[in-house]
Amino acid sequence: MEKPLILVTNDDGITAPGLRALIRFMGEIGDVVVVAPNSPQSGMGHAITIDSTLYIKKEPIDPMDGAKEEYSCSGTPADCVKLALRELLRKKPDLCVSGINHGSNSSINVIYSGTMSAAIEAGIEGIPAIGFSLCDYGWNANFEPAKKDIQQIVHEAIKNGIPPGVVLNVNIPKTGPEGPRGIKICRQARANWKERFDKRINPNGKEYYWLSGEFELLDQGEDTDEFALAQNYISVVPSQFDLTAYHAIQQLNNWKLND
Amino acid sequence: MEKPLILVTNDDGITAPGLRALIRFMGEIGDVVVVAPNSPQSGMGHAITIDSTLYIKKEPIDPMDGAKEEYSCSGTPADCVKLALRELLRKKPDLCVSGINHGSNSSINVIYSGTMSAAIEAGIEGIPAIGFSLCDYGWNANFEPAKKDIQQIVHEAIKNGIPPGVVLNVNIPKTGPEGPRGIKICRQARANWKERFDKRINPNGKEYYWLSGEFELLDQGEDTDEFALAQNYISVVPSQFDLTAYHAIQQLNNWKLND
Repeated sequence: MEKPLILVTNDDGITAPGLRALIRFMGEIGDVVVVAPNSPQSGMGHAITIDSTLYIKKEPIDPMDGAKEEYSCSGTPADCVKLALRELLRKKPDLCVSGINHGSNSSINVIYSGTMSAAIEAGIEGIPAIGFSLCDYGWNANFEPAKKDIQQIVHEAIKNGIPPGVVLNVNIPKTGPEGPRGIKICRQARANWKERFDKRINPNGKEYYWLSGEFELLDQGEDTDEFALAQNYISVVPSQFDLTAYHAIQQLNNWKLND
Repeated sequence: MEKPLILVTNDDGITAPGLRALIRFMGEIGDVVVVAPNSPQSGMGHAITIDSTLYIKKEPIDPMDGAKEEYSCSGTPADCVKLALRELLRKKPDLCVSGINHGSNSSINVIYSGTMSAAIEAGIEGIPAIGFSLCDYGWNANFEPAKKDIQQIVHEAIKNGIPPGVVLNVNIPKTGPEGPRGIKICRQARANWKERFDKRINPNGKEYYWLSGEFELLDQGEDTDEFALAQNYISVVPSQFDLTAYHAIQQLNNWKLND
């Protein structure tokens, strides 16, 4: 039987340890082609490159990782997927995986996530797609404890397919070598960021700001991704790119808009 | 009665004619404060500035436009809203409006839209928020024919509130001076982009690409934003930032994930 073709991308860039780990994990399941940004793109959301040029570079393959081909791209994660599908791959991939992100993309973070934007881009094209993120920002994070679960999720996605219009947002708790307790299907927890802007003065006397802040969970539900992660479970949130709030349509139809 | 405080932002930048028109339209309804990018940010999706500094500049007010205060910011549309709420406004605004974008943000375009990312950012903070876009990319587009309808939508939003977790994605057809035929509450049409990458060679002999392509409508529904716009109606899509595909949770619970 032909091995599935798996497109691997991310937003931390082609050298990120999380991407290298995902390439290795996927290489045991299918034929892997990598198209990833040539520099970190965190917080890029679903940005695409409209008013600027894009460069692609064919990269040497690390035989330890096991990809068939690797390319770096000067654009965003969404650009990488578009370039892969239109220019670089000879056939439509059976799966697109993005990550493993260095840091959580649970709850409201999905909105800002370059990792998930790549998966969503593939999902829009009708390709089963999954974003993986580890709740550990460290560049030396340990991805191995989640290997078995990541491969299991991918096996099930290939076997069952993913419902149309849906991509999976998978977040993995930081654990010891024993790994996560299991996998839970969840909803996105309600939360926001309490930003702080750290105001500083540059050497020329001009004020500037750094964005920082704290994550604020506004949801005590036990069916959320945040709850699962706090219990050391992997969270899987089916996420959609039809943003229509169907429940609000009737209410809005009562507005006086056409006199 | 105190006038409502209206935060106005966009993604085309502080000098864009669409922003200036929105400031004028809102100045007749409330007290307007403008915080907008200092340069165009189209296609930025929900990007935020994490690894770089942010600058804010207080801008002179054009008395013809009628804003109380105006600021430009070096960041993305989402950054502008965060800075407005945390640093620049003395109280929480009663409404945030973003736009008027030069070009459509209907259907799948909402995913890539900086205009809508600003509105969503405000929505996450519990502020009623609306993104406005005109289906005309021209810098000399005529926003006046839609003035009455834009003001009516804003009046209703202030009077009724917007359901929690929902922001409005308003798209306006390009019309003559008679204006749109009316306003319709819609769902987001299914569509994607058939990208083409225009490959060129730079003066140093290196290949590069320009992203271009055609919008492909995959949805013949008569309740969609695309259908309304094609009939010269304004489309209003209630859009949410809880991306959970609730309908898919049960199906995923049948996967073999915890053996």
